[in-house]
Amino acid sequence: MSTLPLIDRQEAIDLVAEQRWADLRPLLARWPEPEIADLLAELTPAEQVVVFRLLPRFLSSDVFAHLEGDEQNDLLSQLNSEETRQLLANLSPDDRTQLFEELPGQATQKLLNLLSPEDLREARQLLGYPEESVGRLMTPDYVAVRPEWMIGYALEHIRARGRDSETVNIIYVTDAQWRFVDAVELRRFILHPPHETVSQIVDDNYVVLSAFDDREKAVQALRRYDLPALPVIDSQGVMIGIVTFDDLLDVADEEATEDFHKGAAVAPLKTSYPDAKIYELVKKRAPWLVTLIFVNIFSGAAIAAFEDTIAAVVALVFFLPLLIGSSGNAGAQAATLMVRALAMGEVQLRDWGRLFSKELFVSGLLGLSMAIVVCALALVRVSPEVAMVVALTMFVVVIVGSLIGTLMPFVLSRFGFDPATASGPLITSLADIAGVLIYFSLATWLLGLL
Amino acid sequence: MSTLPLIDRQEAIDLVAEQRWADLRPLLARWPEPEIADLLAELTPAEQVVVFRLLPRFLSSDVFAHLEGDEQNDLLSQLNSEETRQLLANLSPDDRTQLFEELPGQATQKLLNLLSPEDLREARQLLGYPEESVGRLMTPDYVAVRPEWMIGYALEHIRARGRDSETVNIIYVTDAQWRFVDAVELRRFILHPPHETVSQIVDDNYVVLSAFDDREKAVQALRRYDLPALPVIDSQGVMIGIVTFDDLLDVADEEATEDFHKGAAVAPLKTSYPDAKIYELVKKRAPWLVTLIFVNIFSGAAIAAFEDTIAAVVALVFFLPLLIGSSGNAGAQAATLMVRALAMGEVQLRDWGRLFSKELFVSGLLGLSMAIVVCALALVRVSPEVAMVVALTMFVVVIVGSLIGTLMPFVLSRFGFDPATASGPLITSLADIAGVLIYFSLATWLLGLL
Repeated sequence: MSTLPLIDRQEAIDLVAEQRWADLRPLLARWPEPEIADLLAELTPAEQVVVFRLLPRFLSSDVFAHLEGDEQNDLLSQLNSEETRQLLANLSPDDRTQLFEELPGQATQKLLNLLSPEDLREARQLLGYPEESVGRLMTPDYVAVRPEWMIGYALEHIRARGRDSETVNIIYVTDAQWRFVDAVELRRFILHPPHETVSQIVDDNYVVLSAFDDREKAVQALRRYDLPALPVIDSQGVMIGIVTFDDLLDVADEEATEDFHKGAAVAPLKTSYPDAKIYELVKKRAPWLVTLIFVNIFSGAAIAAFEDTIAAVVALVFFLPLLIGSSGNAGAQAATLMVRALAMGEVQLRDWGRLFSKELFVSGLLGLSMAIVVCALALVRVSPEVAMVVALTMFVVVIVGSLIGTLMPFVLSRFGFDPATASGPLITSLADIAGVLIYFSLATWLLGLL
Repeated sequence: MSTLPLIDRQEAIDLVAEQRWADLRPLLARWPEPEIADLLAELTPAEQVVVFRLLPRFLSSDVFAHLEGDEQNDLLSQLNSEETRQLLANLSPDDRTQLFEELPGQATQKLLNLLSPEDLREARQLLGYPEESVGRLMTPDYVAVRPEWMIGYALEHIRARGRDSETVNIIYVTDAQWRFVDAVELRRFILHPPHETVSQIVDDNYVVLSAFDDREKAVQALRRYDLPALPVIDSQGVMIGIVTFDDLLDVADEEATEDFHKGAAVAPLKTSYPDAKIYELVKKRAPWLVTLIFVNIFSGAAIAAFEDTIAAVVALVFFLPLLIGSSGNAGAQAATLMVRALAMGEVQLRDWGRLFSKELFVSGLLGLSMAIVVCALALVRVSPEVAMVVALTMFVVVIVGSLIGTLMPFVLSRFGFDPATASGPLITSLADIAGVLIYFSLATWLLGLL
């Protein structure tokens, strides 16, 4: 990253080691907050608390918000009550909610006791929304004006209130009962004469969220409407907060990571990979692996059923990995294309029929080209009879695998599961069973081994 | 999505069908731009151009920016030169660059001829940056002030210039030669007395990008620093534009989709799945499928090498799909965890040794639990000897598969490939070969079949 003020982390670490606090302070004041957070993470607990106390108060809460969950917990345990109280008061409400979510229950309770009555009410309210809801991501720090105000007066209000709010690019218009009226870009206030009223620049063009909406909905709205912040209302239409693009970007990243993990038959990790404990990784991976053993037993059983065919033409076994592998690979491709298109809203559940026909064509062409390749191989290495069986099997299993991959996300979704669970490993295992049955049935029939 | 002003698309379509343009116009003025773009996409070309001409000019260019590439091309072909000229002039420079990128070469040339000399210079410059570079995403519409200006004067300037700029939340400070000095939040201007100078609120705390940086770098900076816009400089430190969060969010989504597709052995699609043509889908999927056939030949060859062992104990074949499947599944899990952690910057290339040891432990535990399950199965169904071979094989192949999955992303990256190419299907195929060799070697040795 070409960050112009060169971040010389070693210099800072040396200053800490030499306890030259007076030199460290002005250096850190010029660093972006995430860099300071990374520096803290590298220090000993005793050093951490000294450096943290060096930071100007407005900076220290932002730095704190950039620490990982357990780093926050460690640092908190070093601060005294008054410092903790001030830190909590300076954290923005959405960062505070996140902290409370990640700390163990007892620690959260201790912190709640340190809040001012007003902040406590706010925290209780935000924590009252369901997990993964828009309410949890929300901050009440926004600027609202009334429709009947003159624009000049509204601008004064924006100046006075803007310092605490997370964004001033968008100003919200609410009525006397705080019911949401409109979202208006700041520039419209600047462009219109100060003696006009706010109601004259209201354009009824807005997008709102409910606090109970799934956070995934908020991300979709951000994708679609490109707004830096979205207003949040309750069931009465009263405006209760905003969600900002930076929190939604984090959610989008987390959801994509979850889909990646599910797609490889890993239960989503709650922490980043390097932070995940070994037993946690085992716990997230073992259930699917063991489940797939039982799915794979059917492949074994299918092979067992054709014991005579195999014993008669052992050469058939040579092509088994190739054929069932290709079927699984084509299925994994189709499933991934579907899962991602569903996640990005490019495809809806009701489209399954149209996509099924499209995939039939695509996989037919794929199966044909692969059948030609594998037929040539079998002709060279075994016999024309086996080549015919192998080529025909390839054509059929690529189509069958692809169709399993295409339909599985829709089937899972229909039964209330996340379509992303239609993972490569699951599709591969199912395609294996289908592949074995098709291969040996065709072989038994075509080679006259009945 | 709970968008409060109910978007009644059917009503709009009916109004179009009845040609009640006077009623349609006020209705559309209250719709968000993406909704109008979706409506246009559903109309006939003749209706499209009428509806488009109905839109207020400031709205029409925003709606145009939300259309898909070929929809833009179709609409452009219906507009006359003067309309096209005005549309292009009203498009923001980054949306214009994207349009030029997506149109066929000749169409782009025709459009360039319609630009004003100033816009033409700008377009040529933006198109001069490499594909997927920050320069292509950049817009020159931002507000810059000088350090020596008084804050009151700077605010006047912001008011005057802010109407055209993409964001006013952040104001850029540049010297007389337009060299970048600092990025300052608008609220700092509002909080300080108007007679102080800009240089007094400059805090040297900023993040900048080069126009030649990869766009992926810009996304990482957005993730890290949570800024709604990032300044872009040239090699002399001269500020030449900004990139905004909404464009970077699109890039983040595109890059994640690319990684999903690569992870399932699909060459990344340039269009969304429903828009992709059948031959395009075949072209993106066939190369990997055919390549994997050749990888899978080795599995077949490995099986062939153990023909005698198989002929002696045909029951061994029953467990083959189970064992190589488990190895491939564990490998796909490990590879996906690595690829995603690398993409999110949680893990660096130099960490490979540490991750290798961690995975050795994790996969050892996974292998052990799976060996126990499969041993019980084999005891029930075949014989203690086969059970021993199968259990031992399971333990070893789960570890080997996992380690292949862990290392492959790093190996690919080391040789200049995208680590995301370490796809499930590739890992599965490699794990198959290793699995076959290990299984039949152990069987031949332990069952005394040499």
